[in-house]
Amino acid sequence: MTQQKAPSQRTTVKRVPQRADYEHHTIYQILDEGLVCHVGFVADGQPFVIPTAYGRVEDTLYIHGSPASRMLRTLQQGIDVCVTVTLIDGLVLARSAFHHSMNYRSVVVFGKATLVENAEQKLTALKAFTDHVILGRWEKVRSPSRQELAGTIVLSLPLTEASAKIRTGSPLDDEADYQIPVWAGEIPLKLTAATPINDSRLDSSIQVPVNISNYTRPQTGVA
Amino acid sequence: MTQQKAPSQRTTVKRVPQRADYEHHTIYQILDEGLVCHVGFVADGQPFVIPTAYGRVEDTLYIHGSPASRMLRTLQQGIDVCVTVTLIDGLVLARSAFHHSMNYRSVVVFGKATLVENAEQKLTALKAFTDHVILGRWEKVRSPSRQELAGTIVLSLPLTEASAKIRTGSPLDDEADYQIPVWAGEIPLKLTAATPINDSRLDSSIQVPVNISNYTRPQTGVA
Repeated sequence: MTQQKAPSQRTTVKRVPQRADYEHHTIYQILDEGLVCHVGFVADGQPFVIPTAYGRVEDTLYIHGSPASRMLRTLQQGIDVCVTVTLIDGLVLARSAFHHSMNYRSVVVFGKATLVENAEQKLTALKAFTDHVILGRWEKVRSPSRQELAGTIVLSLPLTEASAKIRTGSPLDDEADYQIPVWAGEIPLKLTAATPINDSRLDSSIQVPVNISNYTRPQTGVA
Repeated sequence: MTQQKAPSQRTTVKRVPQRADYEHHTIYQILDEGLVCHVGFVADGQPFVIPTAYGRVEDTLYIHGSPASRMLRTLQQGIDVCVTVTLIDGLVLARSAFHHSMNYRSVVVFGKATLVENAEQKLTALKAFTDHVILGRWEKVRSPSRQELAGTIVLSLPLTEASAKIRTGSPLDDEADYQIPVWAGEIPLKLTAATPINDSRLDSSIQVPVNISNYTRPQTGVA
């Protein structure tokens, strides 16, 4: 999986290009580990950035929601969209204020979203949303009813114009600053699960499954 | 701190309005706990969503970066911007695929960013960036040099048009689904620090301070 996506004009990372990574593998890994994307679009000349859940199936990103959602109603008109997923990996504490930074992995996707009308593709996308959050969950819960399917809008966005940007490692201080007697290094950060909270109406005979008591990100492998 | 921000047309939460919260206190808490915002703007008709660090001083949000940054060069022209901060608080696992959800807290800010030219205000903002990441850090590290100050663009965005949206608690299943024998409830999630990694050139006499070995979010109180 070393195939590169040729960067288009707008996905070419302008700042600190050595942090850019156009490989499928990296892009998929970041998208599979993330839980929320930030969807950017323009309505009446005003930019909007809305957080929402998503799922990935091969080279397609799916988002979904209610037909009453302003975002989905706007996006299904086929306008330009920018979807960004950011994972915070750590704080980078340098010896000068100026060189403080963060370690992160982010993906930016440009394109136009398309309404998914095919019933089979819609179900595939809904399975992807559920299994993206917790692998194998789709098989264990009630599938969407006809009414729920009709009450869900699914949009697809091709991952054709996507780029990743990554910072890792320690601070880079100015040579003269290495003598400053202050702690410097990295504080790794990770989205971590705490003890699951049973629903108040959970049947007392149901135990917490291991994949829920030991929940970690990511949940999905890289295709 | 129960004063309400009167929602403007564009900050009025359209979907699930009972999740909306226009109070200063809530908005400040979410902004103070977050580490990265997603900045949305339009350039040549194309929406962009760029993740970046930020700081807050009272009713002003600050972002910063290099004068070479396309985002900062675009924003300092005084165009409309949308800045969103999202905290993921948990996964909500229901008995049907349809009712799966996430617990989260998010803030959306609309406005126009302004270039900070006043030297004192610029320093205040730079202190806010550093102390936002780790409280008290600014006093311990080398302050920005004249050259570094000149090489940093700082933009301010008033928190006048801001709204918060929050989901908490357990899943809400359809009545008939409560009999399905599957675990349901919430998996709480939190951005958590692991053991700090010393910089490879750290003087061996320097110990890890307690606020770094026990790092947690948020770092700042609510003003």
